[in-house]
Amino acid sequence: MPDPGLLDRYAELAVRVGANVQPGQELEIICLVEHAPMARAISKAAWNAGASYVSVSYRDQHLKRDLIEHGAEDALTWTPPWLMTQFEHMVEAKGALVEITGNPEPDLYSGLDEARIGRTRMLELAEFTGRMTNDGLMSWTIVSFPTEGWATRVFGEPDVERLWKAVEAAVRLDAADPVEAWRAHIAKLLHRADRLNERRFTALRYRGPGTDLTVGLAEGSIWRAAEFTTAWGTKHIPNLPTEEVFTTPDPQKAEGVVRSTRPLSLPGHGIVVRDLELEFENGRVTDVRASSGADVIRAQTKLDEGAARLGELALVDGESAVGQTGITFWDTLLDENATSHIAYGRGIAMCIEGAMGLSPEEQRALGVNESVIHTDFMVGGPEVDIDGVTGDGALVPILRDDVWQLT
Amino acid sequence: MPDPGLLDRYAELAVRVGANVQPGQELEIICLVEHAPMARAISKAAWNAGASYVSVSYRDQHLKRDLIEHGAEDALTWTPPWLMTQFEHMVEAKGALVEITGNPEPDLYSGLDEARIGRTRMLELAEFTGRMTNDGLMSWTIVSFPTEGWATRVFGEPDVERLWKAVEAAVRLDAADPVEAWRAHIAKLLHRADRLNERRFTALRYRGPGTDLTVGLAEGSIWRAAEFTTAWGTKHIPNLPTEEVFTTPDPQKAEGVVRSTRPLSLPGHGIVVRDLELEFENGRVTDVRASSGADVIRAQTKLDEGAARLGELALVDGESAVGQTGITFWDTLLDENATSHIAYGRGIAMCIEGAMGLSPEEQRALGVNESVIHTDFMVGGPEVDIDGVTGDGALVPILRDDVWQLT
Repeated sequence: MPDPGLLDRYAELAVRVGANVQPGQELEIICLVEHAPMARAISKAAWNAGASYVSVSYRDQHLKRDLIEHGAEDALTWTPPWLMTQFEHMVEAKGALVEITGNPEPDLYSGLDEARIGRTRMLELAEFTGRMTNDGLMSWTIVSFPTEGWATRVFGEPDVERLWKAVEAAVRLDAADPVEAWRAHIAKLLHRADRLNERRFTALRYRGPGTDLTVGLAEGSIWRAAEFTTAWGTKHIPNLPTEEVFTTPDPQKAEGVVRSTRPLSLPGHGIVVRDLELEFENGRVTDVRASSGADVIRAQTKLDEGAARLGELALVDGESAVGQTGITFWDTLLDENATSHIAYGRGIAMCIEGAMGLSPEEQRALGVNESVIHTDFMVGGPEVDIDGVTGDGALVPILRDDVWQLT
Repeated sequence: MPDPGLLDRYAELAVRVGANVQPGQELEIICLVEHAPMARAISKAAWNAGASYVSVSYRDQHLKRDLIEHGAEDALTWTPPWLMTQFEHMVEAKGALVEITGNPEPDLYSGLDEARIGRTRMLELAEFTGRMTNDGLMSWTIVSFPTEGWATRVFGEPDVERLWKAVEAAVRLDAADPVEAWRAHIAKLLHRADRLNERRFTALRYRGPGTDLTVGLAEGSIWRAAEFTTAWGTKHIPNLPTEEVFTTPDPQKAEGVVRSTRPLSLPGHGIVVRDLELEFENGRVTDVRASSGADVIRAQTKLDEGAARLGELALVDGESAVGQTGITFWDTLLDENATSHIAYGRGIAMCIEGAMGLSPEEQRALGVNESVIHTDFMVGGPEVDIDGVTGDGALVPILRDDVWQLT
């Protein structure tokens, strides 16, 4: 356990800065049973911020393990109807959501059939929450909670205090005035997004060891950062930490090969994918290679038509507070904010001009990729050059040696 | 932690004997986050018994504490709609339910306003689950899970192993063949219920220190024990342990005073009620006295019209495996099976001839008390004589000095 002060300050940040809980608003917390101390701190912070109700949905990886091991094929993808009611209610109530990550037992699923792991997903719920985020129907954020098991994965020993220190730095709670630090940091990221939007790049090109990938941007692609706005106008910061400037690509346009630059610990799956390489033709994954976990990725990219196409491009430079810890966290919330990443699966409607609030069909027509999954993996680092491609085919450096070029 | 063998054997008993989970049946587990090891053992046992899906609803007393402290008046009694969906689904699916008790932090609610504690209850859910049990719409059981905090309340020190030993004896898992021990035990209890039913008592009379109470039985009152049968014919044992023979009284007929013989740890409230005395006139509680916790009881008995009337009479003798441990468990599941008890609030439809499956109005007309609460408290012991009253007013001894008289 950290000093209680740190836990409480992170909880405050989650409530006041992250989900930005408003007086009279309901809050839902989603996390694992092992995250209870953090859920409890968030509950207190939310009531203090004036929340009208706070509930928590504890998930249990052990029960999910049993499901993967024993469940019939249709049970693997079934959404218990009460989870739908819960999210439908939160949307209707214009609620807030805090999700907690940090895998307390990273090896729990080892030995299970990887294809079954990859197929296990509550499809109806995934589709609904995907739309929810895309349409700004909830103010939400994701934070992390260090545990002994997670610390052991990171450091080889259960040094939770060290992990807390790293998370503290990653979320800028070590700053003299964290709220001011966040204000300045968000301004910097939004400035970068503005510079990218001015250029109207038609594609991004990634070049590095094992990587030569060009991804087209949709017409109307918008670069965004840090702050989202709900459909009713509340600002919130969906990831704490966040270091990325991101957009959604044209799902029809990806050519080449990309090699992941960091191991990927699949969220909710506890499976580590190492040395991932994806090949693309006409926007579609045509080959998946990895030294571990390849079958989970293969199963994921077959879940639906959009699963094998790209949904996000995100740029992160070497100034990242997460990257500067020098730590591989084995947790997507943190690792994806350490370096540039891309995601296959669901696109981001708010990153296409005019797409928010449209029907799924209309969003698809505008170039928002549709899928029940959205899996980020890391592709950046000092050896990877990232360029913007202009309308006439010229290359404009965006990242070189992890340094941001586009001022 | 107990030896894992004991945890697993108790989980097996919960699944195979208690809820009697059938192949293809869904199982829902309801418990506190601190009960996770037991929930996980039950999940494994249920999949092994052929369950088609296992889910768990973890509750968190800390969040409930925040609600009691900060919630608006209507939030205290609000049922989140997804909990209704969950139970409606389980009824529709003819599911099984295992609930886990054992308070890991018995003092958590101390210092809170007792009247607010007493009013805090999800009313819509309580009404639904009350009907669910009354109409046999689910096969269910309750088991307990020892924790350090609970052991400290019982023994003054966190001796979990000693508490496990006591629970092991109470649920007959120390028998050479527990399944055979349960078979014989259930037969004994059912025999007692038969003897009581033959007598057709019109009332029960309790006499002891501070107690002189007569409670009328409804016409058609049936004594039952141990085993319930669902509406579709599956037998299950709702309490593990169970030592009681019970019926539902006429809610209009209770006269006199009764003094509780054991402290009562209010389920879900973490509040200890000591030296409880209730006075009755025309079936209704007219005065509540206690040296601690009186205000919670007062608030409970005002929740609705039926809350101040009796819903259950249960007889337990000195042979009880729970009573023989000599331990006050501060947990109703165990303590109510150590000695005779009565309950105010909701009556038991299956204990009135022909009442099961009728509408709430029809059940009420037959004498089933209707309420959102059902709170058991202990009234038996060696100093309390319990007699059956015959139609012509004669008294027939049922319990003397904790020994069963009616053979």
